[in-house]
Amino acid sequence: MNSYLIDSQARVEYILDQSLSNNDVPARLRDAMRYSTLAGGKRIRALLVYAAGFASNAPIEKLDVVACALECIHSYSLIHDDLPSMDDDDLRRGQATSHIQFDEATAILSGDALLTLAFELINDSASPLSDTQCRLISHKLANCAGQVGMVGGQMLDILATQPDLDLNRLDRDALEDIHRKKTGALINASVVCGALCSETVSKTDLISLSNYANNIGLAFQVVDDVLDVESDTQQLGKQAGADNTLGKSTYPELLGLNASKQLAQTLCQDAIDCIASIGDNTRHLVELAALVVNRTH
Amino acid sequence: MNSYLIDSQARVEYILDQSLSNNDVPARLRDAMRYSTLAGGKRIRALLVYAAGFASNAPIEKLDVVACALECIHSYSLIHDDLPSMDDDDLRRGQATSHIQFDEATAILSGDALLTLAFELINDSASPLSDTQCRLISHKLANCAGQVGMVGGQMLDILATQPDLDLNRLDRDALEDIHRKKTGALINASVVCGALCSETVSKTDLISLSNYANNIGLAFQVVDDVLDVESDTQQLGKQAGADNTLGKSTYPELLGLNASKQLAQTLCQDAIDCIASIGDNTRHLVELAALVVNRTH
Repeated sequence: MNSYLIDSQARVEYILDQSLSNNDVPARLRDAMRYSTLAGGKRIRALLVYAAGFASNAPIEKLDVVACALECIHSYSLIHDDLPSMDDDDLRRGQATSHIQFDEATAILSGDALLTLAFELINDSASPLSDTQCRLISHKLANCAGQVGMVGGQMLDILATQPDLDLNRLDRDALEDIHRKKTGALINASVVCGALCSETVSKTDLISLSNYANNIGLAFQVVDDVLDVESDTQQLGKQAGADNTLGKSTYPELLGLNASKQLAQTLCQDAIDCIASIGDNTRHLVELAALVVNRTH
Repeated sequence: MNSYLIDSQARVEYILDQSLSNNDVPARLRDAMRYSTLAGGKRIRALLVYAAGFASNAPIEKLDVVACALECIHSYSLIHDDLPSMDDDDLRRGQATSHIQFDEATAILSGDALLTLAFELINDSASPLSDTQCRLISHKLANCAGQVGMVGGQMLDILATQPDLDLNRLDRDALEDIHRKKTGALINASVVCGALCSETVSKTDLISLSNYANNIGLAFQVVDDVLDVESDTQQLGKQAGADNTLGKSTYPELLGLNASKQLAQTLCQDAIDCIASIGDNTRHLVELAALVVNRTH
């Protein structure tokens, strides 16, 4: 990773730590929010915010707020997805999941609080975003995180693994629909909201960036499926082979392992092609596209 | 209830129905969101939005959006509070709770989606709110619903009913702190956000309205505790005597039943006194104060 991305990673870690240090929050709730959010992780969504902001000449102080909000929402989604009634995972980022470390009620509440905090941070009077930016970014975030985005995708994902469903019915289009919502929507929001931190970004550039994000988002999930087959639990920091255990449809299962890897590479190149026309500052976005496809965990 | 409040109730029912009719939402998720949100209920929070907006000369179209957002957040909080790992309630508003009617995963996700939808509705480009109003209202909502407000209160409430806690330690101040957060914060947000729909509301009036709301909010909870002792399950639409079963501290337990009823009346009068100075259009707020204290379910 280049120094801009390394610096960005450090920035968002620092701001998350600051934002999760409110002494008016009940200690157990704050502990649980910090436990899940400050547990490392790749910060891909935050980095996409910074990279898209860099490409759009956005002030870095604005990107800080948006990156932090994105990571709060991502963290909430992992906590809730891992719950016993959802994917029932015990391990995440190499540590016990929130409901194992604390308990189910605390895990649910810490997720709720992180989701809510994202909107509080964006709209805080101290945030450097303009009122119009607050509105556009809040709406985009809510739209991508909610019923037609991430939450909708998680619902479809759960329905697709019901034991009474004939798994053969989940074809490639249906699988792609789930992933575009469950993972893709928030990755799209990261890129677009990063660009919205600029006062001068054009509608055309926003569309190009959104297309870049959609390709990256799908590539991310294809790689996730491949890693679930090829990696071991220690490297992943979560249970390997979990898709198979849960009876989830995956790209390797539908297309084969090699064709899945090829698809990820193609999507990565498509993503880079999407932003060829938006100016000279796209190098961090290009690096992130490669990072998503070549990651090992 | 007077005709303005009856009309307001009909307005928010209509807008909730409209807002929860998006065909891009997975059917099961939409069904669960509608099931919990359109199940009747007193709509106290929506009515407080309309009444505070009326007192502040706010346009009714703006109040519609904010009232709808408040009811979405309230509905989400009930769904999550009722979960097996929280209060474990089977009955709400006279019908099966969400996790009984659907399942736990669907209940959690429908709550998540309703919380997110509140911010999507407020910040929609089609909403009549100005950008500044979107920001102020989004921040107030998130602040009152989140880690230092409602979610924080629910965390404290759960901690206070842990079997290893010496219940005698929960004195009146601690009980009041829980309720001010768990119930009071969202009632405060309802009143203040209603007033923020006005372009002309003064800071002084906002403070008066906020004080009114704090008294109403506490009165609401005192009455809740009294009803839990005095009413039967059918009248309440939820399990009567649940506080006792869960080992929760209550006002009747701390103060006695008659002193609790007296406290509710005093808080109601204090609330009305708070808004004596803010003009001639406070009659709906006055009526709601009485409604909160004299309700039977």
